[in-house]
Amino acid sequence: MTVEIISVGTEILMGNIVNTNAAFLSEQCVALGLSCFNQQVVGDNHDRLADAFKLALSRADIVLVSGGLGPTEDDLTKETAAEVCGCSLALHQPSMDALKAYFEKRNIPLTENNYKQAYMPEGAKVLENPNGTAPGVIIPYKNGKDADGGTTEKKNAKKYIILMPGPPGEMKPMFLNSVRPFLKKRSSGTIYSVTVKETGIGESSAEELIKDLIDTQTNPTIATYAKTGEVHMRVSAMAENKAEAKKLTAPVVKEIKKRFGKHVYTTDENVTLEEAVVKLLKKRGLTITFAESCTGGLLSGRMVGVPGVSDVYKTGFVTYSNKAKHKLLGVSKKTLKKFGAVSEECAYEMAFGAAKAASADVAVAITGIAGPDGGTEEKPVGTVYIGVCVRGEAHVVRFNFSGNREKIRDNSVSAALRMLHSDLA
Amino acid sequence: MTVEIISVGTEILMGNIVNTNAAFLSEQCVALGLSCFNQQVVGDNHDRLADAFKLALSRADIVLVSGGLGPTEDDLTKETAAEVCGCSLALHQPSMDALKAYFEKRNIPLTENNYKQAYMPEGAKVLENPNGTAPGVIIPYKNGKDADGGTTEKKNAKKYIILMPGPPGEMKPMFLNSVRPFLKKRSSGTIYSVTVKETGIGESSAEELIKDLIDTQTNPTIATYAKTGEVHMRVSAMAENKAEAKKLTAPVVKEIKKRFGKHVYTTDENVTLEEAVVKLLKKRGLTITFAESCTGGLLSGRMVGVPGVSDVYKTGFVTYSNKAKHKLLGVSKKTLKKFGAVSEECAYEMAFGAAKAASADVAVAITGIAGPDGGTEEKPVGTVYIGVCVRGEAHVVRFNFSGNREKIRDNSVSAALRMLHSDLA
Repeated sequence: MTVEIISVGTEILMGNIVNTNAAFLSEQCVALGLSCFNQQVVGDNHDRLADAFKLALSRADIVLVSGGLGPTEDDLTKETAAEVCGCSLALHQPSMDALKAYFEKRNIPLTENNYKQAYMPEGAKVLENPNGTAPGVIIPYKNGKDADGGTTEKKNAKKYIILMPGPPGEMKPMFLNSVRPFLKKRSSGTIYSVTVKETGIGESSAEELIKDLIDTQTNPTIATYAKTGEVHMRVSAMAENKAEAKKLTAPVVKEIKKRFGKHVYTTDENVTLEEAVVKLLKKRGLTITFAESCTGGLLSGRMVGVPGVSDVYKTGFVTYSNKAKHKLLGVSKKTLKKFGAVSEECAYEMAFGAAKAASADVAVAITGIAGPDGGTEEKPVGTVYIGVCVRGEAHVVRFNFSGNREKIRDNSVSAALRMLHSDLA
Repeated sequence: MTVEIISVGTEILMGNIVNTNAAFLSEQCVALGLSCFNQQVVGDNHDRLADAFKLALSRADIVLVSGGLGPTEDDLTKETAAEVCGCSLALHQPSMDALKAYFEKRNIPLTENNYKQAYMPEGAKVLENPNGTAPGVIIPYKNGKDADGGTTEKKNAKKYIILMPGPPGEMKPMFLNSVRPFLKKRSSGTIYSVTVKETGIGESSAEELIKDLIDTQTNPTIATYAKTGEVHMRVSAMAENKAEAKKLTAPVVKEIKKRFGKHVYTTDENVTLEEAVVKLLKKRGLTITFAESCTGGLLSGRMVGVPGVSDVYKTGFVTYSNKAKHKLLGVSKKTLKKFGAVSEECAYEMAFGAAKAASADVAVAITGIAGPDGGTEEKPVGTVYIGVCVRGEAHVVRFNFSGNREKIRDNSVSAALRMLHSDLA
């Protein structure tokens, strides 16, 4: 089954916002085993919308649309899609009731242009939107080439236009709760996926390591995704039911885990690297602290993104100046003078000092030159020392990152998390 | 002049990466005064690529393409575009020389499949790529409806397919250095834009305040962009030359600045809110420190993103536990017991304590409940107290943010920057 994704909205055409909806929907469709060969972006314009729908219906079975369902006159997605599908609009009482309830709850007067949102294409399936005012719709396309020339009932239609609201906070839950089950029912078989997340290895080396698996496997398939400092491998199998599909993925996942060893930090799609680190700390009953210079709190901030981190993390330090490194962490003036703040020696003393000052079992120290100024021939911009101290034993690694200030700092945070994971796993 | 943007690549179709290239190109085209009504995404497939190019040429003057210029057999963008434009490929010696030099410098052997990247459509303009191996190309389309039925010289073509590499680090500089000047020369007149950046005011209130200006202006136009905690207004004028265009924007920018007063933090497109804050601190000769609880270092990390922040920022604190708040910042045990860590009183003491502990003139303290747990009826998840202390004078604001942990923390950082800017401006 083929899907085409259409994003409607001037904001995307003008570059005001990045089209994250299309990426989300594509990834979801791939995970369902659906093929997607084309995406379109079009503005709120009747003729261009109609052309986009017709083109998509000519080459795909399901047209997934987000955006343009608002209450204003500009919003034409529903009207145009209904027209292309040959449906007329009629008042949909449950939607009208939901709309009234939504406005009443928020104590906002319901204006007449909102009524428009309660009119739905006849024969369509309306999708509830608990997060906004615009319901979604699944509209059968009676002229679908698999249908009987338009004379059969619409319920036998093989093609559909599915409309969802544009805001990601409304679209995503609607897709997951209503559209995904609809698509899943229509896709031939069940897809089951496991994502093996790895760190401390580059994408090309990672691919090289399982090239034989990628080349020979057709079911399950293996897709590789490169993230900052991480590689994610999604193993997806298709079978008649979930149990069968799961059985197909199991040996491949096992083989990947065997080959990547400690590089694997989770096989749970929803677990991030920092969550894996927090889990390891909890498991081992260790507390942690951070002493950051060039990253200025980014690593600490990312760790605090993990709910429940308070069990293991109490105190952290941003020591940007030499004085702060000396005063808060006890880095010796001699070290700072002789080797400089960006040095292996300083990273060691920062890590030891932070562990002591925070009474923590584990400490991570980052000191480096993020640029644009401050680089020397010996220590160019991008030179970063990261020290990890676990119960009194520390090691420091020197990194030479490239890119601008932002990239160097992001890479430093990832590298620190990778070191932490490797030391704790 | 109409532009259409085509992004080529399976990674985008599969949802592995978000299509930031299209957003960048759209925003750039809008700034040049070009119209963009459609975007397409298509994979590395000859027939689908050819269809996409033909469709785009049927409705736009310039087709901007990124991706699919790599050395492998999968990469068909250049070959297909040349075919659609009726050009054959020939060896382009300068590209071959550049390719050889690129590989020699990196000490990598040049493989035969790389040669493909030095073959260019005849009659096309080749664009250098100092950041990668694939040059860009501007290919004239001889069947352009404004051309003379294909009998005139291609140099008179009015339509073009412009190919650029997919990686943003190669595409963006190529666009800015080579494609933008080409487009600018062809756009009727010159566009000059000023971006007025505001903080501390919502998008709809901001629009309301200048509704009369938006409704009546046609040249310059005013476009509003909502960012987290900020509103950006781009005033763009078109005229015969830059001086004329600048003259047209001036009174509108002046009026907007007058109406928004202290909410305006810059009229420089490239200046961020944290940069504006650092500039104010430097101007007033003040140093700053941060004491963060629920944000865990995010605010500090963002400030350290500003080059040269070391002049004003030396030391910061992440005080996630009550003990850390007491020990590092001197928050009294009585306050923590009576009012709790998430309280106005605690935020005051954190701000005063941080200023003292870091010997800084200004201190910002953030304490709140980012969730998902920890909320109560009186202080639900999203309750955040932010205190700002400037030379011994402090004030605290209570915020009630909605959304998940990430959103609450991001909003807290923005709110703190807004308060800082307002207090220092």
